[in-house]
Amino acid sequence: MQDIVSKLVEKNSSKIVLCVLDGLGGLPVDGKTELEAARTPNLDRISSGASLGLHVPVERGITPGSGAAHLALFGYDPVRNEIGRGVLEALGLGIDLGPSDMAVRGNFATVKYEGDTPVVADRRAGRISTEENRRVISRISSALSEICGVKINFYPGLEHRFVVVLSFIPHLSESDALVCDTDPQAEGKSPVRPSGENKSSQKTAEIAGELIDRACEVIRDEPAANYMLLRGFSVRPNLPTFEEAYELRAGCVAAYPMYRGVSKLLGMDVLDVSGDSIGDEIRTLSANFENYDFFYLHVKKTDSYGEDGNFAAKVGVIEEFDSLLPEIMGLGVDVLAVTGDHSTPAAMKSHSWHPVPLMISSKYCRGGGVAGFSESSCSSSDLGIIKATEIMPLLLAHAGRLRKFGA
Amino acid sequence: MQDIVSKLVEKNSSKIVLCVLDGLGGLPVDGKTELEAARTPNLDRISSGASLGLHVPVERGITPGSGAAHLALFGYDPVRNEIGRGVLEALGLGIDLGPSDMAVRGNFATVKYEGDTPVVADRRAGRISTEENRRVISRISSALSEICGVKINFYPGLEHRFVVVLSFIPHLSESDALVCDTDPQAEGKSPVRPSGENKSSQKTAEIAGELIDRACEVIRDEPAANYMLLRGFSVRPNLPTFEEAYELRAGCVAAYPMYRGVSKLLGMDVLDVSGDSIGDEIRTLSANFENYDFFYLHVKKTDSYGEDGNFAAKVGVIEEFDSLLPEIMGLGVDVLAVTGDHSTPAAMKSHSWHPVPLMISSKYCRGGGVAGFSESSCSSSDLGIIKATEIMPLLLAHAGRLRKFGA
Repeated sequence: MQDIVSKLVEKNSSKIVLCVLDGLGGLPVDGKTELEAARTPNLDRISSGASLGLHVPVERGITPGSGAAHLALFGYDPVRNEIGRGVLEALGLGIDLGPSDMAVRGNFATVKYEGDTPVVADRRAGRISTEENRRVISRISSALSEICGVKINFYPGLEHRFVVVLSFIPHLSESDALVCDTDPQAEGKSPVRPSGENKSSQKTAEIAGELIDRACEVIRDEPAANYMLLRGFSVRPNLPTFEEAYELRAGCVAAYPMYRGVSKLLGMDVLDVSGDSIGDEIRTLSANFENYDFFYLHVKKTDSYGEDGNFAAKVGVIEEFDSLLPEIMGLGVDVLAVTGDHSTPAAMKSHSWHPVPLMISSKYCRGGGVAGFSESSCSSSDLGIIKATEIMPLLLAHAGRLRKFGA
Repeated sequence: MQDIVSKLVEKNSSKIVLCVLDGLGGLPVDGKTELEAARTPNLDRISSGASLGLHVPVERGITPGSGAAHLALFGYDPVRNEIGRGVLEALGLGIDLGPSDMAVRGNFATVKYEGDTPVVADRRAGRISTEENRRVISRISSALSEICGVKINFYPGLEHRFVVVLSFIPHLSESDALVCDTDPQAEGKSPVRPSGENKSSQKTAEIAGELIDRACEVIRDEPAANYMLLRGFSVRPNLPTFEEAYELRAGCVAAYPMYRGVSKLLGMDVLDVSGDSIGDEIRTLSANFENYDFFYLHVKKTDSYGEDGNFAAKVGVIEEFDSLLPEIMGLGVDVLAVTGDHSTPAAMKSHSWHPVPLMISSKYCRGGGVAGFSESSCSSSDLGIIKATEIMPLLLAHAGRLRKFGA
């Protein structure tokens, strides 16, 4: 699909704004979903002349992670272009990855030594505090910064989690990262030694092995975090940028690191946001509106409250977005899309597979005069149920940016 | 899809009529689309017991040309089976292409010579009149009819456009036509010399190069059309015929050359039509009704008026078709389909990507009792939104012409 689209794109002066209310889709509590319970006069008014439908992020029944769901929204096949765990974790910590960087996700663990052999007693080191994590990372970092010319950087995460980035000299390919996880997945077993699937990843595995030996020697005296387990060895996927795929100058307006990181992977300019409120984001959108063709605006807290099972608070975020929508439209948007990356029903306290409400508004919509923007209006409207990867082609078409296919 | 269907087809005496109202789909003006504004009592009556839906000609967001859209309607993947520009232009001029023919689209251009080097001053030769075009073509044709055993035929088109057909002795494959366009795409540049991508197309390129030299020598003294630019070197795609794919004896009832040409490519019998009115077409349908299993009946002017932005006239063509529909049904049609090849909203004055209304009527329809045949009734009916390539299997199924798949 992206291949066909890339051959047909052309530039014009139109402005596209894709608003992603993370985890927007929901399930009913007392007969109404979060979106149906929310008072959304602006969304309702716009939707009566818009195109509505639902999108399936990956496949029917598949609950996506945020990285995969966003790739799909942006038109990249999320199955063919899986983002490695290490890279995703690094993006979540706001770490910039270059083409020579390999990212690995780490857990601190507690081991007991049987002779020289470590045996895992706690795979999460008793979920040490984030402060404790920072202290241990700092001990390791001052003792270890390079192995055989490969620069090593450790970044603390939350609790027992961290990221290690291995910066090689040449550019890396995916095959360099084909190194097994070292987590034995069970207590009472020894950690797995890193090993590579091919010649180039064997080199990586040797460096990872030495990294583990040297780092774990440094922390051998720690009471809890006296060992590390590594997994998700990965490099940045090699994806066409928004400019290459769509001829769009794209700006990312997102407060949270993971979403900023995925946008950066796709060549979007990641714009500064002064805080994490929707109002802060709209100020950024407004200040940069003339400089880009396409904006991705991300609202995080619909998902956070969904994960918390806080139905009312998720409703509140949707209402807040609705109240600010006129400010966005007032900038002179030609094509507005409002959707989620996936569903996060408060009733499930987790991401889910349910198709996600989608509204596309432009002057080229048939409009259905349907009542409001909701899961039910979207499921009986003109777009039907589409795949998330079909959204970008539709936005480009509504923006007049796709030439005719064939004569 | 077509592969599965071909293995399951069987013959019977049923009659299928596929009516294509070109560019049928529309967008609302004063709240109603062209189809919704039209008074269509016959379509409305039939649709209440029919299957309704919308079809996507190529992919979501993709606006198709007529050739691609018709291939899809006829069940041929329009992306895998793209029809070359030269072939499409030839079909549009009613030129018969055999398996040894290569078609090329030509533009007359005005060049200035710097020494012996032509430099393009006007890529369209001031859009010379069609009469002027005919005169220049006739000059070239009398001077040039063969190069190295390859027969050369020039056919004038409208204004500065023409088609040249190179008739080789052996049958051609697509790789023989991999010759670059010679249009430099900008004034002030020299035309590109034809070159081939591989050995067999290099031979074509040499002939094309000599063709250009010899023809342009003939017209060097012309005031405007003193040069030619060639593009879209192409051969007939090698597609299974309707007989091969569907075991259908198929008749084409279309007044306009391009549609007759595409039908011929697919092995349909192209039937004589005495004029270009829907009434003329129905007389042809009626006269040949006993001789075929499947009829493709094409109504052009819905599209033409859509392209003109003439909403009322497009409505008028739909109403005219509706008024004549009882004559078609009176012939004893078992499966009737009414749809468009794509949308051509008068509001956009162009083809568009919007899904196209589709009605299939047979005695095997569930029927929805919906109110009328329109974009909105189709978007909330039993077929949902399907791909155009799924229509032929449905028509064959409704005609009882598909065996069970598997035991």
